[in-house]
Amino acid sequence: MTTRPGNKVTIGAIAAEAGVSSATVSKVLNGRADVSTATREKVQQIMARRHYQRRGSRRRGGIVDLVLNELDSLWSIEIIRGAEETLREAGVSMVLSAVHGDSEGTTAWLDQLAARRSDGAILVVSDLTPRQRARLTALGVPFVLVDPVGNVEAGVPTIGATNWAGAVAATEHLIALGHRDIVHLAGPRHLLCSRARADGFRAAMEAAEIPVREDAVSHGAFDDASGQAQAEALVTAAERGERALPSALFAASDLQALGACAALRARGLRVPRDVSVVGFDDLPVSRWCHPALTTVRQPLQDMAAMAARTLLRLVDGEQVDLPRVELATRLVERESTAAYEAGSTAP
Amino acid sequence: MTTRPGNKVTIGAIAAEAGVSSATVSKVLNGRADVSTATREKVQQIMARRHYQRRGSRRRGGIVDLVLNELDSLWSIEIIRGAEETLREAGVSMVLSAVHGDSEGTTAWLDQLAARRSDGAILVVSDLTPRQRARLTALGVPFVLVDPVGNVEAGVPTIGATNWAGAVAATEHLIALGHRDIVHLAGPRHLLCSRARADGFRAAMEAAEIPVREDAVSHGAFDDASGQAQAEALVTAAERGERALPSALFAASDLQALGACAALRARGLRVPRDVSVVGFDDLPVSRWCHPALTTVRQPLQDMAAMAARTLLRLVDGEQVDLPRVELATRLVERESTAAYEAGSTAP
Repeated sequence: MTTRPGNKVTIGAIAAEAGVSSATVSKVLNGRADVSTATREKVQQIMARRHYQRRGSRRRGGIVDLVLNELDSLWSIEIIRGAEETLREAGVSMVLSAVHGDSEGTTAWLDQLAARRSDGAILVVSDLTPRQRARLTALGVPFVLVDPVGNVEAGVPTIGATNWAGAVAATEHLIALGHRDIVHLAGPRHLLCSRARADGFRAAMEAAEIPVREDAVSHGAFDDASGQAQAEALVTAAERGERALPSALFAASDLQALGACAALRARGLRVPRDVSVVGFDDLPVSRWCHPALTTVRQPLQDMAAMAARTLLRLVDGEQVDLPRVELATRLVERESTAAYEAGSTAP
Repeated sequence: MTTRPGNKVTIGAIAAEAGVSSATVSKVLNGRADVSTATREKVQQIMARRHYQRRGSRRRGGIVDLVLNELDSLWSIEIIRGAEETLREAGVSMVLSAVHGDSEGTTAWLDQLAARRSDGAILVVSDLTPRQRARLTALGVPFVLVDPVGNVEAGVPTIGATNWAGAVAATEHLIALGHRDIVHLAGPRHLLCSRARADGFRAAMEAAEIPVREDAVSHGAFDDASGQAQAEALVTAAERGERALPSALFAASDLQALGACAALRARGLRVPRDVSVVGFDDLPVSRWCHPALTTVRQPLQDMAAMAARTLLRLVDGEQVDLPRVELATRLVERESTAAYEAGSTAP
C-alpha cells in the first residue's frame, strides 16, 4: 500500500472538524445509507475543501471508470476506443457505464462505484451536480472530464477540442466557396461545446462582413433525427416562401449533417449541387457515406487517450499542471461542399 | 458469502487428485507465477473436468467482463449497448476489454481478470484456446459466448443469430427480383458465422436451381475496406472481360455492403440500377445511408442482452438449460435492391 504525496488529511481530522465520530466519516466514505443527509453533506464538503484522499487508493483495484451519457452514437465508440487502448496498455481495466444524461443515472453509477471501488473516472457526461462531485471527492476517486458540456469546476482536469476554431474553419470554407446564406444546424443550446461552435460560426460570418440573419442558427440535438428535422424545417420554410433555401448548411455534428443530407435528398435536393453541407466530428462513416462528408475533424480517440493518461497520473498522485486542454480540430474537405452557384437552390 | 448449489468440489479434493498440496491449488486459482506449467495445466484440467467453482464467488465484486476482439466497428457498439443496459439494470458494473483477436491479448486480459476478480465474462471473441478456457474455469469465472466464431465447446452457453436462415432470406429476395448472377461477398473463411452465411447463400441458389459459379463466393473481412476491395475486383474482372459483372451482391456485413456501394459508385455504377446490394446486420447507419441498405437484421443488442441475462443466472448458481440459442434474423427491404433488368450492367 502506498499513500499519495501530500495526503495529510486524516479521517480523524475530518471527523473533528465535522463534529462527528471517525466511524461516521468512514460510513460516508463507504457510501453507507445509515448516515443523515445533513451529516453526509457536511462531511463531504469538508473532505472536498481539504482535498481528502483515501489512503492506499493508488491503483488499488486496477480499475478505472469511463462514464458516458449514452452509448447509442457513433461518437461514443471513438471515445471508448481511445480510453480502452490507453488503459489496457497501462494494465488497467475499464468499467464502462451509461448514465443517460440524468441525475438518477449518475447517482446509480456512483452507488456502484462506492460498492466496488475504482481508481478514478473519466467523465463524458453533462450533468454532474455539485453534490455528485462532492461524493466523488469523498470517495477519494480522482476524475477527468472529456469535452465537458456544463460549466467546468476549477481545478478539474478537462480535455476538449477547439470547438470554436473548428467552427470558424468550417464557416470560412463555405464563405470561400462563395456561400453567403449559410445556416448553422446547432446542437443543444445548454451545452458548452454547442455554444462554442455557434459562436465560431457567427464570428466567421461577422469577420467576412456577412450579415447573420436572426434565423441563421437552428438549435437541435447531435443526432441524425435532429439534423433531418432541422433541414426539413428549412426546406418547408423555403417552399412556403418564408425564406430562401440557404445554399449551405454547417451542422454541429456529422450525424446531424448526415440526417440533413437524407432530408434534402428526400425533398429532391442534391448535395452539394443544390445545398453544400459541412459536418463536425469526422466519424469513420463520413469517409464512405455518399457524398463523402466535408467535416471538422475532432480527435475523439486522442481526447479520450489523453484523458486516460491524465487520470493515471492523478491516480499515481502526480500533480497535473494543465486543468484545461483543447486538442486541435481541422477541416477535412470531401465531396459534400461545392462552389455557390446563383439560382442553383431556386425551387 | 454464499456457496453455489452443487458446489461440492473442494480445493482439497482437487489437490488430492492432482497429487499436490492445497496451497499449490490456491496458487493456480490466484494466477500466481510460482507454479510449474505442467502442474498448473494438470490442476486446471482437473478443475475443468470436475466443474470446480470457487466458493463465495457469487456476485462478489458486482463486476462482469465484456470482451470483444476490436472496438472499431459500428457492430461493436450495438453489442456493448445491449450488454451494458442489462447489466446496469441488474446493478452490475461492466468491464470492457478489447483483445485484438490474438492469443496474447486474451492472455493479458486473463491476467487482469485474475488480479481483480470478476463474477463472469461475456466473450465476443474468436480465439479462446483450450488452455485459456481452462484458466477461466480455474478462476471460477463462468462465461457465455456471443456469436461465436470458433468451434463451440460443449456445455458453454452460446448466443448467436440465425446466420444461415438470414442468408437464405437475403438470397431468396434477390432471386425473387429476377437476379441469377449473384455474388456473395463473404466474411473471413475461418469464422463459423461466415461459413453459415455462405452456406445459406449456396442453399438458396441451389433450391432455386440456379447454378452456383465457382467464383460466386469471395471471402474477405467484415469491414468496409474489404467490401470495397471485393467489389472492385469484380468490376475489374468485368472490364477485362474475365466474367460479366454480377447483377447483385449479397454482402456478409453491412460494412462490406457499404464499402461495395462506394466502390461501385467510384467506378460509375449505380446502386441498385446497375447492381443490387444486400447487407447483413442492420446497423443504424444502414437506415440513413444513400441508398438506404436492404439488409438482414441481426438483433445484436438483443443477443448481448440475452448473453448478459444468461451469465447473471450462471453467476447466481442456476443451471442453464439451453447451451446454444440462435435469435431470429429477418430481411429488411430498403432502397439498395431492385428488379433485374437485362443489359443494365453491360459496360
